Amino acid sequence: MPSYQAPLRDMRFVMNEMLDYPAHYARLHNGEDATPDVVAAILEEGGRFAHDVLLPLNQVGDREGCLLEGGEVKAPKGFKQAYAQYVEGGWPSLAADPAYGGQGLPPSLGMALSEMICASNLAWGMYPGLSHGAADALRHHGSDELKTAYLGKLVEGVWTGTMCLTESHCGTDLGLIRTRATPNEDGAYRITGTKIFISAGEHDLAENIVHLVLAKLPDAPEGARGISLFVVPKFLPDAQGNPGERNGVECGSLEHKMGIHGNATCVMNFDDAKGFLVGPPNKGLACMFTMMNVARIGVGIQGLGLMEASFQNSLAYARDRLQMRSLSGPKATDKPADPIIVHPDVRRMLLTQKALAEGGRMLVLYTAQLVDIVEQGTDSAEKEQAESLLGLLTPIVKAFLTELGFEATNEGVQVFGGHGFIQEWGMEQFVRDARITRLYEGTTGIQALDLLGRKILMNQGETLKVFTKEIHKFCQAEAGNASLKEFIEPLARLNGEWGDLTMAVGMRAMSDREEVGAASVDYLLYAGYVTLAYFWARAARTAQLALKEGNDASSDYYQAKLDTARFYYQRLLPRTRAHAEMIRAGAEPLMTMKDGAFGLGFEV
Amino acid sequence: MPSYQAPLRDMRFVMNEMLDYPAHYARLHNGEDATPDVVAAILEEGGRFAHDVLLPLNQVGDREGCLLEGGEVKAPKGFKQAYAQYVEGGWPSLAADPAYGGQGLPPSLGMALSEMICASNLAWGMYPGLSHGAADALRHHGSDELKTAYLGKLVEGVWTGTMCLTESHCGTDLGLIRTRATPNEDGAYRITGTKIFISAGEHDLAENIVHLVLAKLPDAPEGARGISLFVVPKFLPDAQGNPGERNGVECGSLEHKMGIHGNATCVMNFDDAKGFLVGPPNKGLACMFTMMNVARIGVGIQGLGLMEASFQNSLAYARDRLQMRSLSGPKATDKPADPIIVHPDVRRMLLTQKALAEGGRMLVLYTAQLVDIVEQGTDSAEKEQAESLLGLLTPIVKAFLTELGFEATNEGVQVFGGHGFIQEWGMEQFVRDARITRLYEGTTGIQALDLLGRKILMNQGETLKVFTKEIHKFCQAEAGNASLKEFIEPLARLNGEWGDLTMAVGMRAMSDREEVGAASVDYLLYAGYVTLAYFWARAARTAQLALKEGNDASSDYYQAKLDTARFYYQRLLPRTRAHAEMIRAGAEPLMTMKDGAFGLGFEV
Repeated sequence: MPSYQAPLRDMRFVMNEMLDYPAHYARLHNGEDATPDVVAAILEEGGRFAHDVLLPLNQVGDREGCLLEGGEVKAPKGFKQAYAQYVEGGWPSLAADPAYGGQGLPPSLGMALSEMICASNLAWGMYPGLSHGAADALRHHGSDELKTAYLGKLVEGVWTGTMCLTESHCGTDLGLIRTRATPNEDGAYRITGTKIFISAGEHDLAENIVHLVLAKLPDAPEGARGISLFVVPKFLPDAQGNPGERNGVECGSLEHKMGIHGNATCVMNFDDAKGFLVGPPNKGLACMFTMMNVARIGVGIQGLGLMEASFQNSLAYARDRLQMRSLSGPKATDKPADPIIVHPDVRRMLLTQKALAEGGRMLVLYTAQLVDIVEQGTDSAEKEQAESLLGLLTPIVKAFLTELGFEATNEGVQVFGGHGFIQEWGMEQFVRDARITRLYEGTTGIQALDLLGRKILMNQGETLKVFTKEIHKFCQAEAGNASLKEFIEPLARLNGEWGDLTMAVGMRAMSDREEVGAASVDYLLYAGYVTLAYFWARAARTAQLALKEGNDASSDYYQAKLDTARFYYQRLLPRTRAHAEMIRAGAEPLMTMKDGAFGLGFEV
Repeated sequence: MPSYQAPLRDMRFVMNEMLDYPAHYARLHNGEDATPDVVAAILEEGGRFAHDVLLPLNQVGDREGCLLEGGEVKAPKGFKQAYAQYVEGGWPSLAADPAYGGQGLPPSLGMALSEMICASNLAWGMYPGLSHGAADALRHHGSDELKTAYLGKLVEGVWTGTMCLTESHCGTDLGLIRTRATPNEDGAYRITGTKIFISAGEHDLAENIVHLVLAKLPDAPEGARGISLFVVPKFLPDAQGNPGERNGVECGSLEHKMGIHGNATCVMNFDDAKGFLVGPPNKGLACMFTMMNVARIGVGIQGLGLMEASFQNSLAYARDRLQMRSLSGPKATDKPADPIIVHPDVRRMLLTQKALAEGGRMLVLYTAQLVDIVEQGTDSAEKEQAESLLGLLTPIVKAFLTELGFEATNEGVQVFGGHGFIQEWGMEQFVRDARITRLYEGTTGIQALDLLGRKILMNQGETLKVFTKEIHKFCQAEAGNASLKEFIEPLARLNGEWGDLTMAVGMRAMSDREEVGAASVDYLLYAGYVTLAYFWARAARTAQLALKEGNDASSDYYQAKLDTARFYYQRLLPRTRAHAEMIRAGAEPLMTMKDGAFGLGFEV
């Protein structure tokens, strides 16, 4: 069985030493509760829960999958009990609004915990995973009655939430949905239609399930402007607020998937189900994006968690597995062969995983500070800036960390050689589980269009400038620091190139809109590498300072951080060379071929 | 269910128009039988077999897997019948030596067919897949008695072969094997030990299974110099040459794997099994490489087949699936949305698959000509050169086509969006099946060491020069061709850089052997991209000539070929920029970190 330990030391480094979380928390509304001691205790406890409770169920869930019988779904053995412990421990309410029973701690803390949950058991994590987004949508857009009826239960975790968007003929293009909402005389609606790919759409972990459903009103305008959001509970709350009458929504079937077998991915049939409008009519898409943005960052964190889990296990294997002698001479002379960690290419794979996981963690915890400020900030200008920066970084967190999460979990398989392909070791499960993260909540292609089209070009690069200016300031401040030169010079160069590339694509897009789509994915990856380069340079700076201060107990840790930063700059960052050149190549090589000519090599 | 059509038009392009197979065949010993008509008929018939017989069993095999009961393995439903048809059709003997009942056609023809088999049903293809290698090892190294006893049956296909190398504690490092061979008085040996990961080690498709087993003689030197090769049949042939007494070799268990579920991957227990020495004592490794090289090219072809299969299905989906409008304005105005093939990023994914599959096919069919010359050539100098060029290209075919096969099959999933993750569509099976190809018969890391260390640096780059000189000559010959300039200029530049990079690594490796391993995988990928660039330039030239000649019926095909070449040069070849820079970064960023420091972020 794979092992997993929450990377507490590394989280402390990022939060306390690099991003100054203590000061950040102190400035938040209600942030005074999140003292360093409280934070440390919560993370430790969370790591224990992930290790003791979730990790042992990860392979169980993969093997057993879920069972649908008479409309009821049984989650794999132990999942229900683990969820009960999770609720009992107060985890769902950690970062929720005290007005609805939450503990009011900063959202960032929940995100740090989320990494541990995803690393130890992604499929399980998808049961509570969408409740936050559902609660957020209700909190921001729901009426007071809806909040009273649903929020407390979601926050407590005794009910879970879903997002019901996709239909079999449309996922990305939600304007095409066919699910209808017909008004009742009592102000409620009757929802009818079929939704697919509904994660945790039906299960036995919680006493009720709160579906947030996109549907069309009878008089709705065509397309995306005619979508409304409804809350449709599995059981309608009774007068006491407990699950009452069974509503007309049922799981029709479960999908057989490549991975996350332990999570129930449901076809949900709504048959005159009673629903309640959330937000204004026909403004469902905007309300939905409240959940969607939370979910997207959540999926990025899934990529991060899987990187770390895979890394930890391939490292253990690389130290244990004896195979061949080091080319520079035997290292473990008392053994019949050297542990494979001595081989440069194995180290390359391990360092790739390590650099991506640790860099990804910096990106997530930086983004988490923006979420904190948006939610609990006290300065309105700062909140506004955090919101637009968060909008910029969300597609990067989502797509970059899942693309590289897939790479990192595959490196994990590769370190294991043939054994990596065998289910027993668990390394291939990380790959299968990671595969969905590049797809759901908007594919990488969709994230890339969001980044380049909506978040950057649509406001003339203003938001991007906020971020590149931050990088620029950092580079300027460290320009005289000879010991950081190896990082600052390339970072400053790339930061400038990022602006140039953006300008070039923007200019071309003015005469041909296809240029945006043609550049988008390479652009997103480019942006991701430069973003991580910024954080790795900051990490290197922090580590160098700590080494200078002579923190002996941790000097190996800081030295490793510095070495990893060097690896990142020298062996991963060169990928920007390829992406930059591909961005510059433009749309022509993609658009020239006739649609009918693609298959002429095999079509008769 | 996924579809598949053998890419006959594309095969004809590569074989007849680009690589002049008719003239090549005419120069081979016995090659006169392989007339263009015969070749065309065989490929067509092979495509039909793949489509009609193998394709329908691909998902069946994935879902059912294999069953072990009482030491006997049952392959999935229909596999046995399909194999009977395969033998009945005379396919196993196609390219085999007439001295043993083979049809004596050139090996390249078998390789072209192999692509179709791998594309339509990889797991099934692994049953007959290793028989060729086993037969080759016997043909080159076996005694006359062994040849008489086993070769005819292997060639006919009524018996299949295996390669029994790996043990649980060693795969790459075969010097560590523990399986022992004790001499009998009758000249045979008693083999005892356990082998793992034995593809088709036990099954019900053939009446006998011929294991080629690495084991150690009692007095064997330590390590790889003390390995011998034995043939160990499941049933010992009786006086009539039919399966007689059951031998002491049995399948102990089946592996549960990420993919190729339809193939039985066996733990094989040898318990005083009767075996017969193949080749000289303690020279087993050299004999094994005869099979291994055949198998490695075979695995590269698996990567190619899966690319093509995935491509064909994602193309069909991209034409069918309606989602969003083209950014440059609606295209399918009669429909609620445009087919996703209009979107530049979808086209990027499709073109990536297409360029890799078609380029991979050129590489394989070029390599296949080298195999033909080595096996059936008539000029000894030409044979010698073909042999060393084949040695150079084998690790590239194996590792580059499987690395990119994994990428291409993943692009296929990505084109399908969420549906790609669902088993029913079959796209995720291609990914799971492709995953093993990067591992078995030597991981990508091992191929890369073989390429850079053994095949290039160990002979001072002499073999590489033969190939880069061929590219250089091509570039020189076309230097005045303005219409090819967009290909020839970058190709010539990269070809020169390839030499420079090799020299640079070679120089560094003289003072630090770790430099070889540190550069190896990036070097192999770099080499692969440049190699494919050479073939794409040749393809562009062929297509341009055909367009000039005004072959109207095929002009769309040729234009698509030219467009794909452009896509390859502008949107894939820039990856060499990243790999070149990473190669230049050298070993230091990989070797500096202390082994004990890798895990300090999570280890307590």
